[in-house]
Amino acid sequence: MKIETKKAKFRQPLYLESGRLLEPWEIIYETYGELNEKKDNVILITHALSGSHHAAGKYSEADKKAGWWDDLIGDGKGIDTKKFFVISTNVIGSCFGSTSPLHPIQLGSSKRYGLKFPVITIKDMVKAQKILLDSLGITHLRAIIGGSMGGMQALRFAVEYPKFADDIIPMATTYQTRPAVIAVNKIMKDAILADPEFKNGEYDPIEIKRKGLRGLEIARMIGFLGYLSPATFDKKFGRDYLKTDGMFELFGRFQVESYLEYNGANFPKWFDPLSYIYILKAISLFDISRGYANLAEALNQIEDRLHLISFSGDTLFYPEEMRKIKEEMDKLNKFCNYFEIDSNYGHDSFLVEVHKFEDIIRDILKE
Amino acid sequence: MKIETKKAKFRQPLYLESGRLLEPWEIIYETYGELNEKKDNVILITHALSGSHHAAGKYSEADKKAGWWDDLIGDGKGIDTKKFFVISTNVIGSCFGSTSPLHPIQLGSSKRYGLKFPVITIKDMVKAQKILLDSLGITHLRAIIGGSMGGMQALRFAVEYPKFADDIIPMATTYQTRPAVIAVNKIMKDAILADPEFKNGEYDPIEIKRKGLRGLEIARMIGFLGYLSPATFDKKFGRDYLKTDGMFELFGRFQVESYLEYNGANFPKWFDPLSYIYILKAISLFDISRGYANLAEALNQIEDRLHLISFSGDTLFYPEEMRKIKEEMDKLNKFCNYFEIDSNYGHDSFLVEVHKFEDIIRDILKE
Repeated sequence: MKIETKKAKFRQPLYLESGRLLEPWEIIYETYGELNEKKDNVILITHALSGSHHAAGKYSEADKKAGWWDDLIGDGKGIDTKKFFVISTNVIGSCFGSTSPLHPIQLGSSKRYGLKFPVITIKDMVKAQKILLDSLGITHLRAIIGGSMGGMQALRFAVEYPKFADDIIPMATTYQTRPAVIAVNKIMKDAILADPEFKNGEYDPIEIKRKGLRGLEIARMIGFLGYLSPATFDKKFGRDYLKTDGMFELFGRFQVESYLEYNGANFPKWFDPLSYIYILKAISLFDISRGYANLAEALNQIEDRLHLISFSGDTLFYPEEMRKIKEEMDKLNKFCNYFEIDSNYGHDSFLVEVHKFEDIIRDILKE
Repeated sequence: MKIETKKAKFRQPLYLESGRLLEPWEIIYETYGELNEKKDNVILITHALSGSHHAAGKYSEADKKAGWWDDLIGDGKGIDTKKFFVISTNVIGSCFGSTSPLHPIQLGSSKRYGLKFPVITIKDMVKAQKILLDSLGITHLRAIIGGSMGGMQALRFAVEYPKFADDIIPMATTYQTRPAVIAVNKIMKDAILADPEFKNGEYDPIEIKRKGLRGLEIARMIGFLGYLSPATFDKKFGRDYLKTDGMFELFGRFQVESYLEYNGANFPKWFDPLSYIYILKAISLFDISRGYANLAEALNQIEDRLHLISFSGDTLFYPEEMRKIKEEMDKLNKFCNYFEIDSNYGHDSFLVEVHKFEDIIRDILKE
């Protein structure tokens, strides 16, 4: 599988939903497979909160980990890179190379945006992707596929750019972020802001990567409460206690605590706290109806085939939320498939249980 | 209704499950109603994480709030103080007057325990209550009633002191704390420890009450994620946005965020961070089987009538956990009633939806 990582730079301003703009701006993206002559074999992959453009493959043999959806994307896999040319972008605001709060506040300035970066919405992320595709001469997509915040992008793309894609496959997502999830996002944000080392966004990013940032670690651990279901916590950890720790020591740890600590402590090494705050805001603000009279009017824009995939054990974006989209689409007589994958794993199923829906995606892409 | 608040002081050591001891120690408690001559009309009330001995009534007309279970306890109420003498203690480790990390590390010392306080378990809390009851000459209880951590105490009391009570009514609780809840507790603890103003437990409690403690505020907000169900978040807040805040301001707030902030900011005014950490540990450590070969052997100790009340929408201690107790009790041919209250409210139902189970308790106490 051929992997290419590229950056596209734009001098024209990116007008944002907030009324503010980014100028200049850039977007980093990765491609897998080969674009055919007709340019009609393109699939857009959209990533979740902590995802990146690196969705599949390894850059070198030495890489420990492949891209985040490597189980799904590759030669002969569900998204077959022998047939399709897959594009995966890093969303605006994220910290893997696209324009973000860590970028210069003005061209040539040594000062970063920090907390002066404009609020980014899912609509803005999608707009940037569309401009990128236009610049590449891609006028039509075979499919748009993403989970969680990636599913929000897929849905938003379908609403804003009707007929641009054949198939839209949003997974483990919702039509609007519910207050319980807004609450989680708020607390994660507050945990970061509360850390004096965050310095109101004026921290040294290299230092943070090296020394960690307790507030971001706590935010990451809070996130895990929504990514795994209680049943998965049971199965994965039970009530096992670290053998090195005393049961009646105040700081003695259950296995689950040690797991959270490990994942928390690693997070600042590879993810930026400002980007995290901005992307949380984008997720909290997500409501596919915004800009339309109501949900029905928003969904009525869609002219692509919609295939919804939810997971029974998802306690972040519940299946009932995606069923609601299905119901509305049915009322509108719009093409919509709904698949509910039986899984106790929880929200992260879309990342870790690819074998459960790989064939569904393969079949959709065959049509 | 007659309310009395008293403190009992003990010179004899309290031997703890950890092998450590408290000496001297004290326990603050409140009573409602009148003890009859035979001393056989006593009901013990056990409180949850942030609860106190002040379960019912007001100390004066000027009090804004009555005790935390005032809907249930009082003259003519579900727990009728015209008939019963109700005792409510503040658990060991908590910050409302019983021996806690804020107490002197030695009699007469000006130094506090702080993080040198021993780990307290639910078994220890119950042991302290039993010693108090013994000292009052109460040799039998009509009932023990409590929700959440209060339910853990009720269960533990039944296992450790068989035949001491007629009826045990644990609500919204479990037989062992699951790893998903241990995870929540761990993150709340870490949020407190991460706050430099916590000063490793060497803070000035008066200053904290006045200035707040961001880490404890964050912990409290995390707690709310488990106290309310997603459906309750929907109903209570929806996606309403504060009218004073801009939708596309980074720090613009949804109503739910403002609610969390308000409750978070208030918490340090009335609850202590060290006590919070110690009680979280007690909850995480809770496993009714500890000290026995397995769950069945533990439950087999029970000689009282057990009445379990769970809430369908409880996402902290799921109904299935209490059903498991019912199943085991049935296998053992032990007396056990199981009631599942239909409620979307979530874990806090046992506090805020008293009308849904008041009659159940009244009926149990009639028998």
